[in-house]
This record gives sequence, structure tokens and C-alpha cells, in this order.
Amino acid sequence: MKIALAQLNYSIGNFAENTLKIKQTIRRALELRAGLVVFAELALSGYPPLDLLNYEGFMEAVERHMLSIAAECKGITAIVGAPSRNEAHHGKRLFNSAWILSEGRVLQTVHKSLLPDYDVFDEPRYFEPASQCSTIEINGQRMAITICEDIWDTGRLPLYSNTPIDCLMQQSPELIINIAASPFHDLQPFKRAEVLYNQAIKLKLPIIYVNQTGANADLIFDGNSMAVDSGGHPRVQLAGFAEDLKVIEIDESWYGRPESIPPQPPDNETITWLIHDALVCGISDYFKKSGFSKAILGLSGGLDSAVVMALAATSLGSENVHAVLLPSPYSTGHSIDDAVQLAQTLGSAYDIIPISESFNSIRNSMDGILQGTVFDVTEENIQARLRGLILMAMSNKFGYILLNTSNKSESAVGYGTLYGDMCGGISVIGDVYKTRVYELARYINRDKEIIPLNTIIKPPSAELRPDQKDSDSLPDYSLLDEVLYQYIELSRDENAIISQGFEPAMVKRILRMVNANEWKRYQAPPVLRVSSKAFGQGRKMPLVAKY
Amino acid sequence: MKIALAQLNYSIGNFAENTLKIKQTIRRALELRAGLVVFAELALSGYPPLDLLNYEGFMEAVERHMLSIAAECKGITAIVGAPSRNEAHHGKRLFNSAWILSEGRVLQTVHKSLLPDYDVFDEPRYFEPASQCSTIEINGQRMAITICEDIWDTGRLPLYSNTPIDCLMQQSPELIINIAASPFHDLQPFKRAEVLYNQAIKLKLPIIYVNQTGANADLIFDGNSMAVDSGGHPRVQLAGFAEDLKVIEIDESWYGRPESIPPQPPDNETITWLIHDALVCGISDYFKKSGFSKAILGLSGGLDSAVVMALAATSLGSENVHAVLLPSPYSTGHSIDDAVQLAQTLGSAYDIIPISESFNSIRNSMDGILQGTVFDVTEENIQARLRGLILMAMSNKFGYILLNTSNKSESAVGYGTLYGDMCGGISVIGDVYKTRVYELARYINRDKEIIPLNTIIKPPSAELRPDQKDSDSLPDYSLLDEVLYQYIELSRDENAIISQGFEPAMVKRILRMVNANEWKRYQAPPVLRVSSKAFGQGRKMPLVAKY
Repeated sequence: MKIALAQLNYSIGNFAENTLKIKQTIRRALELRAGLVVFAELALSGYPPLDLLNYEGFMEAVERHMLSIAAECKGITAIVGAPSRNEAHHGKRLFNSAWILSEGRVLQTVHKSLLPDYDVFDEPRYFEPASQCSTIEINGQRMAITICEDIWDTGRLPLYSNTPIDCLMQQSPELIINIAASPFHDLQPFKRAEVLYNQAIKLKLPIIYVNQTGANADLIFDGNSMAVDSGGHPRVQLAGFAEDLKVIEIDESWYGRPESIPPQPPDNETITWLIHDALVCGISDYFKKSGFSKAILGLSGGLDSAVVMALAATSLGSENVHAVLLPSPYSTGHSIDDAVQLAQTLGSAYDIIPISESFNSIRNSMDGILQGTVFDVTEENIQARLRGLILMAMSNKFGYILLNTSNKSESAVGYGTLYGDMCGGISVIGDVYKTRVYELARYINRDKEIIPLNTIIKPPSAELRPDQKDSDSLPDYSLLDEVLYQYIELSRDENAIISQGFEPAMVKRILRMVNANEWKRYQAPPVLRVSSKAFGQGRKMPLVAKY
Repeated sequence: MKIALAQLNYSIGNFAENTLKIKQTIRRALELRAGLVVFAELALSGYPPLDLLNYEGFMEAVERHMLSIAAECKGITAIVGAPSRNEAHHGKRLFNSAWILSEGRVLQTVHKSLLPDYDVFDEPRYFEPASQCSTIEINGQRMAITICEDIWDTGRLPLYSNTPIDCLMQQSPELIINIAASPFHDLQPFKRAEVLYNQAIKLKLPIIYVNQTGANADLIFDGNSMAVDSGGHPRVQLAGFAEDLKVIEIDESWYGRPESIPPQPPDNETITWLIHDALVCGISDYFKKSGFSKAILGLSGGLDSAVVMALAATSLGSENVHAVLLPSPYSTGHSIDDAVQLAQTLGSAYDIIPISESFNSIRNSMDGILQGTVFDVTEENIQARLRGLILMAMSNKFGYILLNTSNKSESAVGYGTLYGDMCGGISVIGDVYKTRVYELARYINRDKEIIPLNTIIKPPSAELRPDQKDSDSLPDYSLLDEVLYQYIELSRDENAIISQGFEPAMVKRILRMVNANEWKRYQAPPVLRVSSKAFGQGRKMPLVAKY
């Protein structure tokens, strides 16, 4: 039997569009003579539908559209991920299910057993875990159908008390199918390949893995669906960050295979281009799925806004990216030149709106109140907020989405102005440490100088007071980023970080800054997630706490 | 045996302070000759500690401080809520536990069975449910110790597949103890009393219930700990929104009681004063626990900012509340008069900072860009954002926390300016519909006119263009609030709301506004939660979705 792996880009709650895509793909799979076509986890609803699942109309829409998809399944079986109802009197109202469609109807549903609720995941909020396991025969082949997390419990991270794969194996399946909505982070494609490899050689069975692709605000799905044979050897690999459809035929050559070499972790250059492609996908889908096409951003002449602008130009087309230079009394001439040069290289429109007069006017209006006080962070913030105000005015007037340009290092330590440079509809590099932003810049310049070299090599500065440098307030980024990574991505605490040889006072100072700025990040825009621990819904910290 | 119910106000992660409070209360209970003192759920850590639980140092601090509390327990047993480690090889790393301390040491831990993960709750993210149940004998009395949700599964909302109370009852306890961290909403004190009543008469046993009090950012704990006899009759009731300690002696008079009358739902006036007291508590603890004492807010002369100012004056003292009037060209004279009158009545300081010149200066700086466009929401937003900018400048310069004054109705439909009037460290009435804000104003004025009558009776207006009224853009608040309540609190969808007789086009328009403004609320300040469904962590909606 030929099996089609259908890797599509779904939109949350957009049943009409998702249904159309799924039906078209079923027809295409039929043309390719597939007997089975496999779609991703929660394909019909999009992932994650979150509290939309609490609305009765949402489930009615799922069921209505699923029936219309089933009607399409003549001469072919389809596996489509979607929620289904739990008819029992106890437990959560829904399951996270694989719907098996055949002969024009719904044949059966298979439910997810392991419901993740760490990091960005919160599935037990909605779903009851499967209480039993059973394999399914499709066209004479016995298959174990699993959903995402169900195959991830490889014994190394024993979060769960049951292992659905062990249960399914007792029924001697010939093939494992896994439908997934597995969001990207820089190591995730590797980790996923590793899980598939390990399971295949452990179970001595081929595994078909179908993921979503495309982004929904913060979460980005990288696709990279694949099928491995019983030796863990990848026999087919679908595209990264793009829709794809491939047909395989699982014959005896997929069985009894010697163990292949395990997948290797990506090198640093690979990680940079993976992040680059993820961000381009994230920007593009955020705009498309929000119904917008044009972006605006404040271009300072510094590294962060330059990288964001180049990414946006790749995602949206440089004609859809509008830069605004907002020089203050403390902006340097070379910054304006660098910014202009970038906009011109990309061929994007730009405006220059000096903020000095408005800044003075605001200070004058507060004269009686600020009298006798000295220039401090207040005046720096007024400049940053004035820029945010002007950018948002242009967004309002002309229908741009404002791109936020804060990086993860400054967001972590609160080196940014809430309602100022922290404004924006989406944070493009808010999950990218400054040291990686440099690597992104070099990657963007791999063929020619798009980002001016001067922007990359000059010392970073907010330019909010004379001769300001980031290094006046922060440790070197290389050191800062190492400590932040340990604290945020690895959840290591102060003692554990210090014990590795970092200077205790510096570690304490950095962690204090991270913790003290939780209130700012609470009001930050959604962040395109490209690490295993992004700020936002995946890192839930108390706002008022002592730690 | 005398039993002390200890209702305290804990701070998240503040082990030193929480430990000190618990120890002092143990000594006080000893003085009162209690043999047992009962503290709330997660007392030692504060609730909710969220992802702090992922840090090893956090659990080490729990254990270290718990041992020092145990050392205090000589001649008395204490039940203290705190996380504990799951030593099994499978499942989540922690339990949500009641620690039983006696004779200077930790006698035992009892774990929570039912872990809520709806609304603001997300306990399965951290905790493994108890896998067994067992009663405990303390001073010769057999007790069933339960944690919050464990007694809430009364069969009406069968979210769970097991009922720990049924299991415990097989061991014939003489008494049920429930330690809780049950956050306030307007009907919660009633619902809680109802659960205790129903369980008591069903189990024919007395129940001791100990809750937390005080607030941590959005969540407010109302206390209201109590003990009911076997007939469901409340025999002792602790304070609302304040620390309290009461000692009871459970003798035979608590047993074999006839069923008392069930608790009655609160009337509308009671709900208003409950919300009032909750908000006062919420403001007060947000400031205290953040280490701040002074608030600032923009006072428009309208209802919302007036109510927020009066609440803040009650919470923080009027000398700690600073009002700023920020008239624009479209502000009316009576608004300024009303605002001044309120500040003077309260005896709070105020400044007047006109924004017209800064507004013109910003428009001039954008002259070339805005040329040929007409005055629209952009210019309205510039005014709102200029106000936000000035208020934040004062916050930065003088160390005020800015109070946000948006109400729930406008937050729901997006009738507010992101980075403008949506600024603030905490949203005071963001969970209070406009119709209830009127009732709060009347309650605040119950003894004398604090909020000027004119502020209450004039038609609401944003005053961002000539003769603007809220009713130009929105349905009447009484109608709007009814539809919003159905959609938000009751999770009823469009069809279900329309079927009750509301005008279909209006319902569709309101729901469209709610859904289209999710991106704004994502960046809104934390909201003091006083309803069963507040915006924020308890209502998780996709940012980019079609619904």
C-alpha cells in the first residue's frame, strides 16, 4: 500500500480553509494512488486552539467539517488530527484524537495518551488521556497510531506513568504512525529525529511521522515530517518550514534493517540558518494569518533593528517593509547613515522623523514637575516612548504592523523601555540572544553585504544619552548570554551556575535583573519561539515574588 | 483537642517571611492550648509558585524551612501546605502536599489528588496526583486531610475520574480537614460555603477549611476560612481579606446534627462590596509585596479613573495616591472640575499637565507623513499615548506605580489605546464590567459624596475628539455587559447567545470586537481577578485565529 505524508500549514479555527486544504490533498493523494493519507495532529482545528475548545460551536464545527472530509474518502483512508468528544461521564470533555476516515465515513477515533503540560504545552486543560490502546488494521496492515508525545516517552524523561507504545506493541503492529504538532526550537528537528531513530531500532519497526508546518503567532512548526525504516534510517524527508506531500510504499525493504548511524546534533552554523528560516516563516505567517501585508519598524542603525528589517524583507518582500529613523539629540551621525544604507540596499521605503522637538515639548509641559531633578532613565525612556508613539501612529494611520526589535538578552535583563522600544505586534528576535543576533547578521550577509558592516562591528548602544554603550550597564554579551542560557533554558539556579566558575557577584546581579523585570515582559508582545525556553506562555513566573 | 485555624497572608517565594509568620502562629496556637494548628495549601511557598518550582534551589528552600518549622512543633501538631518531592521514577517531580509536623519533625506528607487545570489553574504542570489515600490519626482523632480541589468534586462537574473523598471515607475518619488556596471571585465565597455544606451533610462529618488570604498580583485570596458541623452549620467563620486565627474544639455537639439551611447566594449589593473589598486588598498587597508605596494615575473626570482613585486611596492612604490631569484640546471644562473635586475631597495631591502643545509638536514632526490624511483614531491614540508617556515619566522619576483604569467592558471590546490608557503596573478594574463600576461608585459614596455625582451621572466619553460619547461606538453598557458576560464568563457561543433573544447583528458585532482585540489584551497589565473569568492567564485564546 502506498502511504501519503501530508504536511500542511493550518490556521487555528479556520475550518473552511483547513478543510479545503485537507480535501484537496486527499484528492492529490488519490491521484498518486495512495491507499492511506496521513495528516498532522489537530490538523482540522489548528494548534493550539486553546480555550476556543470551551465553546460548543467550536466542537460542532469540528464535527461538521470532519464529516464533509470523510465524504471525500472514497478509495482511500485518511488519518486526520482533531479533537473529539469524551462521551464518558467522568474526565475532561474532549480527547486529542486521530480520526480514521474511510468509505465516506468516520471509521474510528484513536486518542492521545500522553498529554504534555510543560513549557508551552497545556493539553490536560482540555483533553482526557486515552484510557486504552488499540492498533488498527488499514488495508490489511496492522498499524499503531500514536499522537506526538505518545512516542516521546523514551525512558529518559519519565514524566508519565504509562507508556502507550509498550501497550500497543503487545498487539504486534507492523508499522507505527505518529501524527504531530511539534513546534520548532533550535534543537527540536534533531531531537525529533533522535526519538524516531531510537524508537525504530528499539521496536524494530518503521515509523511514519507527520508534523504541521507554518506558524501561529509565537509557535512555529518546522514540518520536517519523515519516515524511518526499522533500522532508524530516514527513507523519506519532507520540507522544512513549507507544505509538502510525499508518497512512500512500505515494502519488506523497510524491515529487518541493521541499525543506521544515529542522527547527529546540528553544528552552530546549522542552528543559525534553522533559526533564520524559522523567523522568516514566523513573520510571514503572522502577517498572512492576521490579514496584514505591510510592516513598519524603527531603524536605529544598530544591529537588532537591522537584522529584524532584513528578516522582514525576506518574509514580506522589501516593498512591504517601511523603516522609520527617529533620531534624538543623542543619535550619532553614523547610526543614521548605517540605517539609511540598509534601507537603500534592501530597496525599502524609509522616513526620518527627528524626535528632538517633541521631546523638548514634553519636557517643557512637565517643567514644573521635573524642575530640580537630573537627567536619568526617565529622560531616556521618554525618547524611547516617543518613538513607540510615532511608530504606532503610523501603524494606526496606514495599517502597518509594528515589528518589535528587542533581543532576548535585553528582554531578559530588562534593558528596554516598556511602551517604548518594547512596542510591537510581534517580537521577531525576542527569543534570540544577542550573540546569536550577530551570527544571524553574518548569515544574512553570506552572499553580499546587506546589513552594513559598520552596524555589525560597532559597540552596541541605545544612544539615549551622550556616549552611552550597552557595556556601561551590562556584562559582555558573550558572558551575559552564557549565564542567561543556564538560568532560562536549563533552569539552573544561582548556586548551580556559580559552581561552574562564573563570578558570583555577576551571576547574582544578572539573575536579579531577570527576576526584577518579569513585570515588563508580562506586557511584552508575543515572541517568535526558536529556543527550548522562550519568554511568554512557556515560562510562567509569578509577577510579585521574592526569588 | 483544640484546633487552631490559621489564615495567613503569604508571599510567593518569600521563605523567610512565610516561615516567620508560620512559626509565630504556632507559638500563638500553643498559648491558646491548641493541639493542632492548620495552615493553608502551599502556605510555605505562596500560591502559585509557577515555574519557580522548576528550580532545584526552590525545593531545597522549601525543605530547609519546613525542617525549621517542624523544630517549633513541640506539644503541638501543625499541618502546613507546601510542595514535596515525588521519589518515584515516574510522573511529575513534585506533589502538592500537606506536611504533618509533630514532635520536632516531619511526621508524614499527604498529597493532593485532584489537580485543577482550568481557568487560572495549571497544577498538573508541576504536580503528580496522589496515587493512594490514607487518613491520619492525630491525638487519637482519625482525620481525612484533603487539599482544596479534593473536596470540590461533588458530582456536578465530573472533571476527574477519581473521588478521593470516597476513598478516604472507607477508613472512617471523624473529621475532614481541607487546606486551600482558593482565589476569590464574586461568587466564590458562596460556592465554597455550598461545597462545605453539601459535603458535610453528605458525609455526616464536620469539616475544617483553611484558606489563604491576601493577594499576589492578579489572584486575590479572600480568606473566609471556616468550620462546619455534621449538619453543615457554620460553627466558626474567619475574616474576609485579612489574617485571622481562631481556635475551635470539636466535641460531640458537632456530630449527629440535623441539616441546617443551605447557604444562600449573595444579593447584588453583597457582590458589590465583596468586589470592593477584594480590589482594596489586591491593590494593597500588589504594592506591599512589590516594595512600593505610592501610586499615580491619570484622572480624567470620568467614572473609571475616579473609582480607581478612590479604591487606591482606601488601600494605600490618600497621601500615597497622586493624580495627574492631562487635558487635551477635547477635554471639557466639567471633566477637569470633577477630577479636581475628587482629588480635593480625598486630600490627594494632583498635577495638571496639558498635552495640547506636545500633541501639536508630535503632529508637526509627522507633518510630511500625515499630510492629506484626516483626523481619525490615529490622532485619538496619539493623545492617549502621550498621557501614558507622561504618567510613565512620573512613575520613572519619582517611583510611583501607575494604576491602569480600564474597565472590563472596554477591555473586552478593545475600546482603549494600547500603550496609552492601557498602560499601568496593575489593572484595578479590568475585571469589572462598566455597569458594576457604577455600583462600585455608589458603594464608595455610601456615606458621603466622595466621587462627584456629576462623574457618575454624565454620559461616558473618552473625550478624544469633539463631542465624543462611548455610545457613538458601543451598544448601551447594560446590553453590552450582558452579552459579554454570556460570552466570557459563561463560554456561550454566538448561537447560544442569540437564541436568548439578543439582536443577532449586535451579538455578532460584539463577539467580533472581543475576538479582534485579543492582541491588545495580550500586552495589557495583569488584572485583579474578581470574576470567574478574568482576562489574563485564566482565559487563554489564540492570538492569530479565525473565530
